[in-house]
Amino acid sequence: MTDKQPIVIAIDAMGGDHAPDCVIGGLKRASEKFGYIRFLIFGDEKKVRPCIDKYGLSADVYTFVHTDNAVPPDEKPGVALRTRRESSMWMAIEAVKDGRASAVVSSGNTGALMALSKIILGTLPAIHRPAILAQMPTRHGVCTCLDLGANAQCDARNLVEFAVMGEVFSRVVMGKKVPSVALLNIGSERTKGLDEIKEAAEILENSHSDTREFKGFVEADQIGENVVDVIVSDGFSGNVMLKAIEGTAKLILRLFKDFRGSGVWGFLSFVFAIPVLLKLKKKMDPRLYNGGMLIGLKGISIKSHGGTDEIGFANAVGVAVHTVEQDLLGQITENMSKVVFPEAEAQAASDNA
Amino acid sequence: MTDKQPIVIAIDAMGGDHAPDCVIGGLKRASEKFGYIRFLIFGDEKKVRPCIDKYGLSADVYTFVHTDNAVPPDEKPGVALRTRRESSMWMAIEAVKDGRASAVVSSGNTGALMALSKIILGTLPAIHRPAILAQMPTRHGVCTCLDLGANAQCDARNLVEFAVMGEVFSRVVMGKKVPSVALLNIGSERTKGLDEIKEAAEILENSHSDTREFKGFVEADQIGENVVDVIVSDGFSGNVMLKAIEGTAKLILRLFKDFRGSGVWGFLSFVFAIPVLLKLKKKMDPRLYNGGMLIGLKGISIKSHGGTDEIGFANAVGVAVHTVEQDLLGQITENMSKVVFPEAEAQAASDNA
Repeated sequence: MTDKQPIVIAIDAMGGDHAPDCVIGGLKRASEKFGYIRFLIFGDEKKVRPCIDKYGLSADVYTFVHTDNAVPPDEKPGVALRTRRESSMWMAIEAVKDGRASAVVSSGNTGALMALSKIILGTLPAIHRPAILAQMPTRHGVCTCLDLGANAQCDARNLVEFAVMGEVFSRVVMGKKVPSVALLNIGSERTKGLDEIKEAAEILENSHSDTREFKGFVEADQIGENVVDVIVSDGFSGNVMLKAIEGTAKLILRLFKDFRGSGVWGFLSFVFAIPVLLKLKKKMDPRLYNGGMLIGLKGISIKSHGGTDEIGFANAVGVAVHTVEQDLLGQITENMSKVVFPEAEAQAASDNA
Repeated sequence: MTDKQPIVIAIDAMGGDHAPDCVIGGLKRASEKFGYIRFLIFGDEKKVRPCIDKYGLSADVYTFVHTDNAVPPDEKPGVALRTRRESSMWMAIEAVKDGRASAVVSSGNTGALMALSKIILGTLPAIHRPAILAQMPTRHGVCTCLDLGANAQCDARNLVEFAVMGEVFSRVVMGKKVPSVALLNIGSERTKGLDEIKEAAEILENSHSDTREFKGFVEADQIGENVVDVIVSDGFSGNVMLKAIEGTAKLILRLFKDFRGSGVWGFLSFVFAIPVLLKLKKKMDPRLYNGGMLIGLKGISIKSHGGTDEIGFANAVGVAVHTVEQDLLGQITENMSKVVFPEAEAQAASDNA
């Protein structure tokens, strides 16, 4: 226990491959790390209670609200919007809207979480389109990437918004003082790529910021090299990049097993490689730097990886705590106000606000 | 020597990181494999002659044309177009245009090769936009992918053209009888992704073909799993996918070295892993299934990987031979004629033809 004001986090206990077990296990870990947080847990009593007992989650740190409705992992966002008002996900988001909680954390269906969060919480006035943000592995750490799939098509203004939001997240959650930011493109020269990307680059260059170092364009093969802290893209190519990285990591670890061969040499090569392979698996596994975010909303909505375990879920809760404590939303609004848009854009922006 | 009619391949000897050495080494290998091919080599005599002597390329199999002009690897396509008429690349492409050669192979600057090939050879009447095609590694082989960067923005018709061209290439060069084809998307459901992708899927579904199995959508994380033979995308997301795969492979091999640690265990883990790592490197290295293609042109233009060695260059020459022998261009035209476009599209297509 500390003297800090308690922070209440709303928890969708029913989302994710290993829910509610890993969720409650994660809460136990998080409550040990942050003595001043409280949980408002939404889920099916029959399933959640045994986990609370199993992990010995203290009654002081949580309030439980029963609902036997949950958003299935593959439900379409539109269907969830129309039919899941009683679900653990909906109720957890609503707790943020009502001020009963400062943030929501869910391992559930990303599309549904985005759709529900957008409708229930709304979008920040300075932002046109919220984005999905997550961390990608690099040689010496991670890199913050957005948008990873919320907006298949984006204009220059959307990309600029993502850049500002990514920068604030990288500072607040990842602890980078002056995050370096680049736009994903298919060549580093000025003349390459799509018009909206070139236009966004121009706006970011013209909008000087003490808290952001704009580095122009980056290509997807540089992502592992720690060249920048934040990579900005539309949701389509961001999602392609994310999936290509996941697929290649899976392929290589698979091929390692295929290729090691049989016999004594094959056995030894595997035995001696085990520590390295385990480290590699951990490095390429999103759970340890878990805590994607649906960023740009009028509330903190944290997306934990669906396949995560209790360590990963605890990390996602940690992300929620940092974003609340350091007023991530206020910083986004403030930094957006410093962006210099071309005149027409600025007009459109103020019309929209 | 065989009884086959000689096939003449125009060679840009000055393109690529290891030119002209690997180029001439590759020609030596290719000439041993295909006794009936002849080379029309363009390059700087001072640099190329010593390589011809080094590899002992027989005077029977080549004609040499001197030029000391070459397209630098980082020259912008527009600059190359205006100033490189005397370059080895331009002259090699022109040899195809003039009928002195049946195909051109270059390891040079991809953007310049595409721009020059487009201007000199022109585009096939049935095709609106040529594409860059290459092979990606999978668990049990490779997968043909296009477009990898020629067209940052594409409409439904472009994507359908890529699908047909990819199918023909996969059959002719990769030996697949009825190639399976899918469109790259960010979800496998019908409702996901960009309009042009959904529209292209509809056209491909309505255009039955005995030589193509259309499988709908595929996500970038499935590429290593051999789920389809051909993956079709716009040039922006295709390039992002290609680079993300390359970058991740590089990152993981790097991390393997970082992680193995020091001491006896680290030494042993490395020693025993060497055969596996070498196989992995080879698998993830494009040179062995080298031979990308600029497809959709009125002529065969083969792009060999810039960093390739003589084995890779010989493979690229092999791709040129297959495409010429099996009339790849004729097959593209024939298969395009079987595509059923919606009425407005069909009209636009005939206007353009």
